[in-house]
Amino acid sequence: MFPYKTSIQFDRKSNQPLYLQLSNQIIQFIKNQQLPPNTKLPGSRTLAEQLHVHRKTIVACYEELLLQGWVESIPKKGTFVHRNLPELDQQRLQDEIMVDSKITTGFSFYKNDILPQKPAERKADFMYLDDGISDGRLTPLDEIARTYRRISAKKNVFKHLSYGTTFGNATLREVLVNYLNATRGLYITKDNILITRGSQMGIWLSSQLLLEKEAVIIVGATNYGSADSTFLNQQARLKRVSVDENGLVTDEIETLCKQQPIKAVYLTSHHHHPTTVTLSAKRRIHLLNLAKRYNFAIIEDDYDYDFNYNQAPILPLASHDANGNVIYIGSVCKTVAPVFRIGYLIAPKEFVDEAAKLRGFVDRQGDALLELTFASFIKSGDLDRHIRKVLKIYKQRRDLFCSLLQDELGDFLEFEVPKGGMAVWIQLNTAYSWSTVSEIAKKHQLVIGDWQRYDLANSKHNCIRIGFASYDEIEIQELIRRLKNTLYEVKEME
Amino acid sequence: MFPYKTSIQFDRKSNQPLYLQLSNQIIQFIKNQQLPPNTKLPGSRTLAEQLHVHRKTIVACYEELLLQGWVESIPKKGTFVHRNLPELDQQRLQDEIMVDSKITTGFSFYKNDILPQKPAERKADFMYLDDGISDGRLTPLDEIARTYRRISAKKNVFKHLSYGTTFGNATLREVLVNYLNATRGLYITKDNILITRGSQMGIWLSSQLLLEKEAVIIVGATNYGSADSTFLNQQARLKRVSVDENGLVTDEIETLCKQQPIKAVYLTSHHHHPTTVTLSAKRRIHLLNLAKRYNFAIIEDDYDYDFNYNQAPILPLASHDANGNVIYIGSVCKTVAPVFRIGYLIAPKEFVDEAAKLRGFVDRQGDALLELTFASFIKSGDLDRHIRKVLKIYKQRRDLFCSLLQDELGDFLEFEVPKGGMAVWIQLNTAYSWSTVSEIAKKHQLVIGDWQRYDLANSKHNCIRIGFASYDEIEIQELIRRLKNTLYEVKEME
Repeated sequence: MFPYKTSIQFDRKSNQPLYLQLSNQIIQFIKNQQLPPNTKLPGSRTLAEQLHVHRKTIVACYEELLLQGWVESIPKKGTFVHRNLPELDQQRLQDEIMVDSKITTGFSFYKNDILPQKPAERKADFMYLDDGISDGRLTPLDEIARTYRRISAKKNVFKHLSYGTTFGNATLREVLVNYLNATRGLYITKDNILITRGSQMGIWLSSQLLLEKEAVIIVGATNYGSADSTFLNQQARLKRVSVDENGLVTDEIETLCKQQPIKAVYLTSHHHHPTTVTLSAKRRIHLLNLAKRYNFAIIEDDYDYDFNYNQAPILPLASHDANGNVIYIGSVCKTVAPVFRIGYLIAPKEFVDEAAKLRGFVDRQGDALLELTFASFIKSGDLDRHIRKVLKIYKQRRDLFCSLLQDELGDFLEFEVPKGGMAVWIQLNTAYSWSTVSEIAKKHQLVIGDWQRYDLANSKHNCIRIGFASYDEIEIQELIRRLKNTLYEVKEME
Repeated sequence: MFPYKTSIQFDRKSNQPLYLQLSNQIIQFIKNQQLPPNTKLPGSRTLAEQLHVHRKTIVACYEELLLQGWVESIPKKGTFVHRNLPELDQQRLQDEIMVDSKITTGFSFYKNDILPQKPAERKADFMYLDDGISDGRLTPLDEIARTYRRISAKKNVFKHLSYGTTFGNATLREVLVNYLNATRGLYITKDNILITRGSQMGIWLSSQLLLEKEAVIIVGATNYGSADSTFLNQQARLKRVSVDENGLVTDEIETLCKQQPIKAVYLTSHHHHPTTVTLSAKRRIHLLNLAKRYNFAIIEDDYDYDFNYNQAPILPLASHDANGNVIYIGSVCKTVAPVFRIGYLIAPKEFVDEAAKLRGFVDRQGDALLELTFASFIKSGDLDRHIRKVLKIYKQRRDLFCSLLQDELGDFLEFEVPKGGMAVWIQLNTAYSWSTVSEIAKKHQLVIGDWQRYDLANSKHNCIRIGFASYDEIEIQELIRRLKNTLYEVKEME
């Protein structure tokens, strides 16, 4: 007789009903052949007494086992473990799994060595450099959450709760068409826009549609790391051209075009990532002409369009593109907050249609409630008001950050005051290395972060990108103090 | 002299400031060489008078053009179109684009013929069959939106607004681990779970990591269409096995395993999509043993776990998997509403880690605010209360729908009352065809939808899947009435 009383344990604090706890344990015994086929199970009354549970629990459990096919009921004889069950071939018993939960995978699969993403654990009292992100504390969260709730309370909201189109919510697309035409000098209609979940999805969709294995894509010698990884993951070949004070050197692009078929050029023309320079008018025209002549796509990632401190933002390449060469990518992630996954991909209709199909495979649809929330947030002018507000604050932060950098650390670092964006491109005197600085900084509770990522082409420029927008003025002073202490300690070590 | 007065037009209703409207138009003239290099622009006072705008507008415009590099300023001489600008090579003028916005793509890209997604325009007064979706009107939207706003108002919410991990919000992962262990008989830890944006993302991630080109994946002769398309888009080879009243015929899977390497089996074991049958206990064990012996992955898509009307839901294969063969996929899309893009992928840690990396390429991160909202919604027991509520309603709808089908249309149709889920698998008498029924139904303001998708293997089973959960009782009666009128008209035609 199987020792039910000692083998079965109930967790009375669990959400799981007792009858299911019981049936699950009996299933394990059946699978392990501790209860082999044809074993008679005790009568419900007997088992109920043994286990100190209500008889109804046992009846429900046996019904469950019967329905799932683990046992069979033979009239006038009782309940038996099903006679036709094969034995389950297990590495080890299920109760061992409960202990460590470290089952290894029983099949092979593709492993990727391009992007090891391990989010660092953040320690209190430490400051972490970033490469130019917005200050979460300035997010107009209350307005957005209120709008979200207001939209959710609308009478006709139910039609937005089911499956929708992979192009994104129609209202947001309309609002963005008007907004982008007015602010970016575009001439698009709803057919030219796909709502994405941020710039990364736009880069990925473009990459998938453009780049076959071994296709050539041109990027800057310095470039936005996630874009590089996305293209490499696609098994494309990256060709790098120089970046100077006028942005990507288009003459080098022309030389490459003469040597081989070029599928695409990726760039951040407004403020080159990471060096912050703006592509000059002459090179803009040159690049557009090359794209037309050599039939390549320009993936224009306009990640920080809204942040220009000295003048109006410069219109994107997309606003000059009459030949259908530009895929224009943007999002509200930098402008509002990364948590709001609302972005867009702008391109000729036939490309947008394919991108929408592809999007359906990875992500059935967008979040219509959030999309409607942002449609309202943009249309009401709240987005523009928010931009005006933070632009003023970020300009003050840039000015403070740069003047402190110059005054306090001018002996160690060189940089240009950026005209826009949220970060400064900073060169360390060649006498020092970011490797040492990064090490010593930890002693001063400052984390420099992954400084290697700024020199993917290994050109030894000794520069990194440091964001200024996410710190308030007191924090900026503290950050500079820690960086100064670090650098002076590094100097002493020489 | 260039006719500025007649060529330049302002749209005073536009959001775009006048100086930007002006500079954009001048840029077009420069690009088209209507204003060739070295052309002198009028003085700001002169132009302001001609255009009836304030002089400041012209000054701002010229500054903009200067900063963007379109013009140069020569001291004491004035403002000139930059002498070094190349001519832009355009198909046609920008103002033509404004008219139709139908630029064609100036580069080649991958086109996909697998999944033509054209969302049908819905007409009022028409009823549309679905294949088993929830009723949006029952969504606990107010609770969810209120929770969303409450979470957004929390003091420490700011740390969730920036860039986060691709695994999904840590709190939701913990809550789901407890919830799934309790309800699904799993034994997982946080290391085994990745938050996705719904089941489709789970299917896609698995497909990408498992299926190289030409790899073999086994699916049912009838199968969930989106899964089929995802695997085909991955250029995998689909091998189909029969589906009977006990689900996938695992003996046929064994035969295939002996013939060739099998990379994965995809199934909806709880209620097979589309036929609604449950995989029997014997076949569950057989399939797990085959997976162990032949080292393949089982992609278990448990899309409607919560909807079982006669008994407790049957535990997934994942609850019996001690060998690390099962990738378990689920979401709240069916349980709450498709608009809430919250799903999960459960697998051994090493697989989850790779899936998280890959997810980073397509979609930088999840929506932490929505994830926190659902963590609270699940932990508070609201999700369970919601499930209990709708389960009762959907059971009534199933009963009504099936009894009307039987009573009113029993001469035309055959079906089994489904034990769970939101749909019935219905066979039309072979005397009739869904093609004709679909045609005639339109006259009765009923849209049958894409009935062909249920027979992707072309086995002529003459069945389709009809959802009952999204209609209330009055709508069900009306739907049956229209279907009845349709079928009698089809019969008359014979």
